[in-house]
Amino acid sequence: MSTPVHTLVLLRHGQSQWNLENRFTGWTDVDLSPAGEAEARDAAALMAEAGLTFDICHTSVLKRAIRTLNIVQEQLDLLWLPVFRTWRLNERHYGALQGLDKAETAARYGEEQVFIWRRSYDTPPPVLDRADPRHPSGDRRYAEIPAADLPCGESLRNTVARALPYWHQVIGRDVTAGKRVLIVAHGNSLRALVMHLGGMTPEEIMQFNIPTGLPLVYELDAALRPLRHFYLGNPEEAEARAKAVAEQGKAK
Amino acid sequence: MSTPVHTLVLLRHGQSQWNLENRFTGWTDVDLSPAGEAEARDAAALMAEAGLTFDICHTSVLKRAIRTLNIVQEQLDLLWLPVFRTWRLNERHYGALQGLDKAETAARYGEEQVFIWRRSYDTPPPVLDRADPRHPSGDRRYAEIPAADLPCGESLRNTVARALPYWHQVIGRDVTAGKRVLIVAHGNSLRALVMHLGGMTPEEIMQFNIPTGLPLVYELDAALRPLRHFYLGNPEEAEARAKAVAEQGKAK
Repeated sequence: MSTPVHTLVLLRHGQSQWNLENRFTGWTDVDLSPAGEAEARDAAALMAEAGLTFDICHTSVLKRAIRTLNIVQEQLDLLWLPVFRTWRLNERHYGALQGLDKAETAARYGEEQVFIWRRSYDTPPPVLDRADPRHPSGDRRYAEIPAADLPCGESLRNTVARALPYWHQVIGRDVTAGKRVLIVAHGNSLRALVMHLGGMTPEEIMQFNIPTGLPLVYELDAALRPLRHFYLGNPEEAEARAKAVAEQGKAK
Repeated sequence: MSTPVHTLVLLRHGQSQWNLENRFTGWTDVDLSPAGEAEARDAAALMAEAGLTFDICHTSVLKRAIRTLNIVQEQLDLLWLPVFRTWRLNERHYGALQGLDKAETAARYGEEQVFIWRRSYDTPPPVLDRADPRHPSGDRRYAEIPAADLPCGESLRNTVARALPYWHQVIGRDVTAGKRVLIVAHGNSLRALVMHLGGMTPEEIMQFNIPTGLPLVYELDAALRPLRHFYLGNPEEAEARAKAVAEQGKAK
């Protein structure tokens, strides 16, 4: 068996205002709740306790991930680390569901359809019209992205497809160059990386639920193949939290 | 007269713990005081009121500047902006004076000598020995800087010499490319930029005191020559604050 050469840490941002209200968030730029800020501090404490440190950080362009990272950097006294923000690590775009709560969504589209959008790997939600104020073309943070790349509603398959180029072109190269990388992102953009690292099938990744605020450590060999992965902290708690995510119905 | 083509904003971080204690800080990585955090929020409010926004941010690798920038980005809802951190925007390195307070410094080196270190453009402070725990070679954030570039005590001339390449190679290019740039840095690294932009002599820049927490706006022509510069907010307050900086004796 190879010995681990690289360590990579994935962290899903803590609770946001809309997680709390159980609304579909997607690319809506919702802030952390006070509980989410506390989760970020706790995640930093777990990393410090495990003796982890970093050379570079990657995150999305959504403030719930960026603020989680800022808090972690403050707590670890690593504010000076280079940080790269990219839309490719954003949450899955929830299209016309963004902003709706579970009850509204069920009333509008039916329970069964909502279940399919949540649980299927490749069924996208109803897409946003270009004229919709929620469409990303109206937000200047996405101004430099070619219109053809800009999602207006994504299946998990679509999220994987736009997240992985960033792994191949940027993060993977950092890891190969010997950098200790911290990625702070979202449930589904992290699933995209986990699916790729683990060579998972669509069915397997749909069963893989990443709890918020628990650092997920990957030990990789020289070819970036995972030798081992584990959550920091109490393993029972990690499992209980992952289960809670699965049962929540995931109105992200 | 040319019409302004570019707008550039410089912001000096707010009060730090050591400003408060009147100790030579330099590259010591001291945090903001609560008053410094409040200054950052006020600076953001002035920028919002003036209708300013940004495309890209540059700061140092010292937390008092980075935290000031984080607060400004939070307040302006611009956490998604790309941020670049560089040692070239760090405060002037105060060599063996770092950590000493005014009384200690005067007792050790004499009042007159301290006055020269503060007021002369090209007299460096006593330099740090490589074995000194305060020497930057012991800090991993500087690990990738060639040893020959790493300062162990700088005059303002030295600070200008290491800050300007970053202007020429990075920030100036961003501005020329049409980016609205925000720079959050330190009294002396900002002086380096101001000296260059204004074509000032050493005597002139030594008289130019940048108050903390007041955004300094430069309007530039297409060749990056300044047409006008001004502080946001009440002009009397800006002048009073600059004067206070000058009189403080600048134990930064």
